[in-house]
Amino acid sequence: MLKNVLDNKENYQPSLSIDCVIFGFHDNQLKVLLIKTKHSHEWALPGGFVPVDEDIDDAAVSVLYGRTGLKGIFLRQFATFGAVKRNSIDFSNRVLNFYGIPLDEGKWYTNRFVTVGYYALVDFLQAVPQPEGKNEIVEWIDHHVVPDLILDHKKILDKALETLRMELNLMPVGYNLLPEKFTIPELQKLYETILGRKLDRRNFLRKITAIGILTKLDEKKSNVAHKAPNLYSFDQDKYNEVVKNGLHQGW
Amino acid sequence: MLKNVLDNKENYQPSLSIDCVIFGFHDNQLKVLLIKTKHSHEWALPGGFVPVDEDIDDAAVSVLYGRTGLKGIFLRQFATFGAVKRNSIDFSNRVLNFYGIPLDEGKWYTNRFVTVGYYALVDFLQAVPQPEGKNEIVEWIDHHVVPDLILDHKKILDKALETLRMELNLMPVGYNLLPEKFTIPELQKLYETILGRKLDRRNFLRKITAIGILTKLDEKKSNVAHKAPNLYSFDQDKYNEVVKNGLHQGW
Repeated sequence: MLKNVLDNKENYQPSLSIDCVIFGFHDNQLKVLLIKTKHSHEWALPGGFVPVDEDIDDAAVSVLYGRTGLKGIFLRQFATFGAVKRNSIDFSNRVLNFYGIPLDEGKWYTNRFVTVGYYALVDFLQAVPQPEGKNEIVEWIDHHVVPDLILDHKKILDKALETLRMELNLMPVGYNLLPEKFTIPELQKLYETILGRKLDRRNFLRKITAIGILTKLDEKKSNVAHKAPNLYSFDQDKYNEVVKNGLHQGW
Repeated sequence: MLKNVLDNKENYQPSLSIDCVIFGFHDNQLKVLLIKTKHSHEWALPGGFVPVDEDIDDAAVSVLYGRTGLKGIFLRQFATFGAVKRNSIDFSNRVLNFYGIPLDEGKWYTNRFVTVGYYALVDFLQAVPQPEGKNEIVEWIDHHVVPDLILDHKKILDKALETLRMELNLMPVGYNLLPEKFTIPELQKLYETILGRKLDRRNFLRKITAIGILTKLDEKKSNVAHKAPNLYSFDQDKYNEVVKNGLHQGW
C-alpha cells in the first residue's frame, strides 16, 4: 500500500493526510474504530493520503470506505493537526523498514505530514468494518480503554470527542443511533454516554422537547414492569432542519 | 516575496497555505481585514506559506504578523479548505506572470494548495495594519460590503463568520473589544453586531448574567440623559475559565 503510493507519489497531495475518528454507539456504549498497524503493533486511526484530483472532504470518504468498508455516513471535518514533530523520523523509518522500502526512496513519506481530522458517529452494530488485506485488524474499542496510539492519534481522538460533546450543544444526535421508536430515558442515556456524565431527568426532558424534533407516539414501551414509559420517534423533517440550522438555543 | 519562497521552496510545506480572517470590532461595527493584491487588483485574506520547521498554529501567528503587524492576539483554527479547484491554474499563472517568474520555475505554486483557516476578533482601533512593502494596501472593510475576493476567500470568510456566530453559544466575547467599564446595552450591541440580528433585552440580560462573568460596579454611566444604566466589568478569572471550559449551558 505505502509502496504503491510512493511509486505514484505525483498522484498524491504531498505532506498531507486524512485521519478519521469513527465513534460507534450502541446500547449505551461509545466505542472508537481503530486499526492495528502491522509495522508497529500499535493502534491507529483509519487514515490515508489525498489524491491530487480529489477534494479533501471526498478523500476522507474514500479513506474511510477503503479502510473500513463504511460508506454513506455523516463525516465532519473538525481540526487540522500540523505540529512540526507530529511524525518523527524514527517512526517513518520504522514503517519504511517494515515494508522493505529503502530510506532514500521513502523520503516523500518522512517529511512532516499535516493531517486533516474528520469524525463521525454511527451505530457500531450496523457498521461492519472490512479490513484491507488479511493481516489487518480493525476493531471497535471502548473509548474508556483506548490503548496507546501511533503518533499524535490520541490527541486527535481526544479533540474529536471534545468536538462531538461540544456539538451536542449545537445540533441533535440520535437519528441512526437509536431504534425507530425510543423512550426519553433511552435518548437521555445516549446523551449521557457521549458526555460521560449524568444529566438531570427533568432538565433533559424540558430541553429535548423544547427543540421540537420529537413526535410523541400513542404507544408505550412494552415488557416494562410498571409505569411503562411513552415511546417517541424523531420528526425527520424538523430533525434535519435543526441539524442544518443549529439549535439557536444560545442567544 | 513569491520569488523568494520559490527560490527556497524546500523550506516550505508543499501545497499548504494559511489564511487568516481577522474580524475587527469597534463601536458597533464589524469589519474584516483585507489585503489588495497587486497582481489581480482583487482583495484577499492575509495569508502565506508554512515553513517546514514551524507548527501550523505558529505559522498562522507569523503570517498574521508579517502581513499585518498584528501580534499577540487570539487566533483560532476553524476549518481547512481543500477543494480540487480552489486555486485555478489561470490564477496561478497570472500571479507568476505579474512577478515575472517563468511558468516552469513556478510549478510548485500552481499545484492545488490546501489552506488552513484561522480567525480572530480584535478591536480594530487598537490594531494598526502594517502593509508589507509600499505598494500593498491593507484595509479594514465593513463585513456587509466586502468586495470580490480571490479564489475561495469569500467562502473562507463566510465560514469564519458562521463559526464566530456559532461560538457565541460556546464562549463569551467582549474582553479586549469593549472599554474596561461598559453597560449591558453596550455588551448586547456587540452580540447583535456579530450575530447580525436584534436580541430581546430581557432574555439577553438573563442569559449573560447567568454565565457569571460580569461584575456589577457601584457606578452608573455618566452623560446619559435619564435613568443612567449601571456599569459592569468582566471578572477576568471567571471569564478566562469560561473561555477555557465552555459555557456548559447546553445539557
